[in-house]
Amino acid sequence: MHRTHTCGELTASDIGKKVVLSGWVANRRDHGGVIFIDLRDRYGLTQTVYDPADSETAWKIADSFRSEYVVKLHGTVRSRPEGQSNSNLATGDVEVIITEAEVLSESKTPPFVIDDHSEANEEVRYKHRYLDLRRKKTLHNVQFRAKMNQFARNWFTTEDFLEVQTPIFTVSSPEGARDYLIPSRLHQGMFYALPQAPQQYKQLLMVGGVDKYFQIAPCFRDEDPRADRHSCEFYQIDCEMSFVEEKDVQDVAERFAQDLVAHMAPHKWVKLDGNDRFFRMTHTEAMDNYGSDKPDLRFGMKFADLTEDFRDSGFSVFANAVAEGGVVKAMKFTRPNLAPGAAPMSRSEIDDITAVAQAEGAKGLAYIIYEEAGPRSPILKFFTGNELAALEAKLSPKVGDMVFFGGADRKLVNKVLGKVRLTLRDKYQLANKDELCFTWVTDFPMYEQKDDGSYDFEHNPFSMPHGGVAAFEGGKNPLDVYGMQYDLACNGYEVLSGSIRNHDLKALVKGFEIVGKGEAEVKAKFGAMYEDFQYGVPPHGGFAFGFDRLMMILCEEPNIREVYAFPKSGKAEDTMMSAPSHVDEAQLRELHIKVRESHKS
Amino acid sequence: MHRTHTCGELTASDIGKKVVLSGWVANRRDHGGVIFIDLRDRYGLTQTVYDPADSETAWKIADSFRSEYVVKLHGTVRSRPEGQSNSNLATGDVEVIITEAEVLSESKTPPFVIDDHSEANEEVRYKHRYLDLRRKKTLHNVQFRAKMNQFARNWFTTEDFLEVQTPIFTVSSPEGARDYLIPSRLHQGMFYALPQAPQQYKQLLMVGGVDKYFQIAPCFRDEDPRADRHSCEFYQIDCEMSFVEEKDVQDVAERFAQDLVAHMAPHKWVKLDGNDRFFRMTHTEAMDNYGSDKPDLRFGMKFADLTEDFRDSGFSVFANAVAEGGVVKAMKFTRPNLAPGAAPMSRSEIDDITAVAQAEGAKGLAYIIYEEAGPRSPILKFFTGNELAALEAKLSPKVGDMVFFGGADRKLVNKVLGKVRLTLRDKYQLANKDELCFTWVTDFPMYEQKDDGSYDFEHNPFSMPHGGVAAFEGGKNPLDVYGMQYDLACNGYEVLSGSIRNHDLKALVKGFEIVGKGEAEVKAKFGAMYEDFQYGVPPHGGFAFGFDRLMMILCEEPNIREVYAFPKSGKAEDTMMSAPSHVDEAQLRELHIKVRESHKS
Repeated sequence: MHRTHTCGELTASDIGKKVVLSGWVANRRDHGGVIFIDLRDRYGLTQTVYDPADSETAWKIADSFRSEYVVKLHGTVRSRPEGQSNSNLATGDVEVIITEAEVLSESKTPPFVIDDHSEANEEVRYKHRYLDLRRKKTLHNVQFRAKMNQFARNWFTTEDFLEVQTPIFTVSSPEGARDYLIPSRLHQGMFYALPQAPQQYKQLLMVGGVDKYFQIAPCFRDEDPRADRHSCEFYQIDCEMSFVEEKDVQDVAERFAQDLVAHMAPHKWVKLDGNDRFFRMTHTEAMDNYGSDKPDLRFGMKFADLTEDFRDSGFSVFANAVAEGGVVKAMKFTRPNLAPGAAPMSRSEIDDITAVAQAEGAKGLAYIIYEEAGPRSPILKFFTGNELAALEAKLSPKVGDMVFFGGADRKLVNKVLGKVRLTLRDKYQLANKDELCFTWVTDFPMYEQKDDGSYDFEHNPFSMPHGGVAAFEGGKNPLDVYGMQYDLACNGYEVLSGSIRNHDLKALVKGFEIVGKGEAEVKAKFGAMYEDFQYGVPPHGGFAFGFDRLMMILCEEPNIREVYAFPKSGKAEDTMMSAPSHVDEAQLRELHIKVRESHKS
Repeated sequence: MHRTHTCGELTASDIGKKVVLSGWVANRRDHGGVIFIDLRDRYGLTQTVYDPADSETAWKIADSFRSEYVVKLHGTVRSRPEGQSNSNLATGDVEVIITEAEVLSESKTPPFVIDDHSEANEEVRYKHRYLDLRRKKTLHNVQFRAKMNQFARNWFTTEDFLEVQTPIFTVSSPEGARDYLIPSRLHQGMFYALPQAPQQYKQLLMVGGVDKYFQIAPCFRDEDPRADRHSCEFYQIDCEMSFVEEKDVQDVAERFAQDLVAHMAPHKWVKLDGNDRFFRMTHTEAMDNYGSDKPDLRFGMKFADLTEDFRDSGFSVFANAVAEGGVVKAMKFTRPNLAPGAAPMSRSEIDDITAVAQAEGAKGLAYIIYEEAGPRSPILKFFTGNELAALEAKLSPKVGDMVFFGGADRKLVNKVLGKVRLTLRDKYQLANKDELCFTWVTDFPMYEQKDDGSYDFEHNPFSMPHGGVAAFEGGKNPLDVYGMQYDLACNGYEVLSGSIRNHDLKALVKGFEIVGKGEAEVKAKFGAMYEDFQYGVPPHGGFAFGFDRLMMILCEEPNIREVYAFPKSGKAEDTMMSAPSHVDEAQLRELHIKVRESHKS
């Protein structure tokens, strides 16, 4: 037997008990000939004491212990001496006086200190993830993930959603991101693909009558690495329902998100609209008012449209922008905790935020500072009283506030002001980190126009258009077709995407015809769906939460890699396992492939 | 709104309610001008009635309904006429008289009848799995799997096991079965591999202090298709524990299996040994007594060893076998429900079972039939009284019993009698299908000797040997080294495999030296393990249940493919999705690979 108790278990009620403990040597102190060693395991720390007066043998063995040795100890629990209790530890009232000690496994000196306060660099930590896992923060994330997985699965199960594990070996899909491919050994020259998402399978399940499906689904996209995207694999809380409309689906997502927060992060709160629902706006509104399709509504700084007000402005940048069909917008910035009379931003702070705007493509960043003495701005001289009055009416600036402007074409203004808004949020803590503001972004445009005048799908081609099938008929401008498609934003992240699907094969084909693709192409590229849509399809829709993204938010973890037990590096490598790797020629031969030399591709 | 109720919901308490139902047209009957249609969804069937007297419009629309149309119906719940209730249906007391009807989606005639009684062939069913899923049996398996997944996860979570999702993109491992490979786009000429099992990761988690880990893990092995093995992907209930010995690990598995049966298949019962534990025997005993490393102990027919008794037999087959170092064994067959005086097997039945023995490599299958008048056998004339007495003493045959013999080298005899035993089980229902007999098979030999006299690992090289590190030292015969490795058999299937791991790097290297591999090779081939084993390794061990195999047994499903929502065919294809498939040359180019032409490999 290796232990009678874990290292997180002993309390005052165990005093006097003979115990066996096993764990890792966390740290060691010597005090007047007596050795103190904190023994660590997943459950906690226990202080162990080696006194030559009690057992000289144990004391000698303990003297040979080094950090991270795995040891097994026999001893007796006793109270810590008066005044030496540690109320931060569950075991802080007791210590164990050791009479027998044994090294189970030695350890070299670790490449970084196993300590929650020292920050080792990511590269070293990931290469030795088995050591990093001994740190409380890393273990916490692993535990959080397990708990969130369990909560999510049990929640959907309780709601009568049926968990279905869809295949990991499937077929390459011609739309979307790049597929990962797996060469087939049994079928020469053919390849499986890993699913980018179980989209087709979940729709097939609806056709199969499963009615309500969910899965915490592994998804695989061969995309270039990015900070909020994990390489190779990531997880979705994937869900689909039959005989539903938008509201039915969104209700489920809202209830789940609220329950998830209450269960997993009870110290956080969800900001709701006047009807106790998640905020909602159309995709157009989100772009026009916040310059983002995933707006952070924890704070204000909504854009005001001043296009008409500045149509004839003396400030030529604005007037020209309007004349060229562009827009003029402004947003108000209130610096928190500003001392009376102080300037909201220094000269160099203004230069910094102007540089942010310029990096997004703006020529500059016009602003007004509202001071006790009145507005101040390098461009104030160009403004008429009417223009200032319009600003006053739309933004109600107070003393100490600033107003930032954008005047250019609509897309650019939205992009620049959106970026400025988020930069100010981060720099001046405009948003409360414990507040969660979920916001529905709805009515995505189905199509975009390409430079040559033809159309392409802007988003999901399988969404039902608003207005149903009729939207594709009668010569309606494709740019005016909006899908029953919705994202859920939270604090500036996209945490969910979903839609009501187009379940009518004829309409689906019509939708594809607009982008110049005919029935034959739909049939060739989406064969299973083309087939199954001929055998009785229920109206259906669903969504997928980004599991990892949600967890980042709930754990306040800015780096998505940290939400995985064994993360891939920023270069899509498992540095601990040395993946990817070269493989034997014989393996490739069996799979009927060969590596293409780069110089003669 | 598409429905107020599902098709499994309405009962007598709903009589008089106005309801909206949506679902599939399951079947239709016409009775005196009135149409009756059973509407089906995941939850059940509801009888709907269309009477021109109530609504001629609805009646006319219903008249256009065909099988598998998806329709939406408004109507009023009423009691079925006296004597027409259907107690097999939850909704069997009521019917809905329809006043409004609408076709939501039409259906072509399905390629097979959606009916639980008609057996369509597997090929057609899998090609149209979305239709097959509308059959009760297929849906039942999908539901069973979901419930079993949830039960297993919650069970291990409650027991403080931490669920960890280990990576799906990992490195090719040189031992074991074939790996599936994924070419890397970012790292030219390199490949990820899908894990055959999370073996290395779970051991790394133990080194990381996770202490108790579990996962329902997808596993991937590129093996040739087989009836009890699903192609491409399968699932394990994977588990690992630190600071444990064999009994600790086996206790967990026993408790889980018992609770699983009680929860998922309460009509089945678990056969236990005299101590209310699972049966157990060593690997050697299993092979010697039942000719199988996964013995089915629901019935007897244990082999009796008669080698010494037949050493000098007048039956030269037996005497020669013994002289050549082989064995003579026998087992007793009692035919169930045999009429008094009847022969246990006919001449042709004996010929059949003899053919089974011959197919396994036996020259023939000697037997004795015990009749009222005494034993009868073609070889009886060669037997002495002592030999018959030995049989009597070891097998206690009664009138009506048969005894089958094997005399040859040990391996062949075990194999032949083992096969004969299972064939008789299936043919004469010797085992109760509702009984589950879990049996530990322990102490697997670590090594086998090759023809050239050298040694190779027979099983898991990472298992701790019995006797610990010392087993590898002091010139012990490698064939006498047994691993702390255990399988769990159930009803003739292997349902679990596990071991206590060798956590001592030096011992691990010694174990490899016996098969002619040195430290450098261990380091090169198992780099992560070689590294992490230098930083404090707890004693640890674990197991993996075969999820799909367990589910087959609990569902009495002889075909492992049926336990998947979307199975691969016997040729490792997803015929519905047409996977694997050819892919674009451009995709291969991005992945730096090309297909090898078969004629110029």
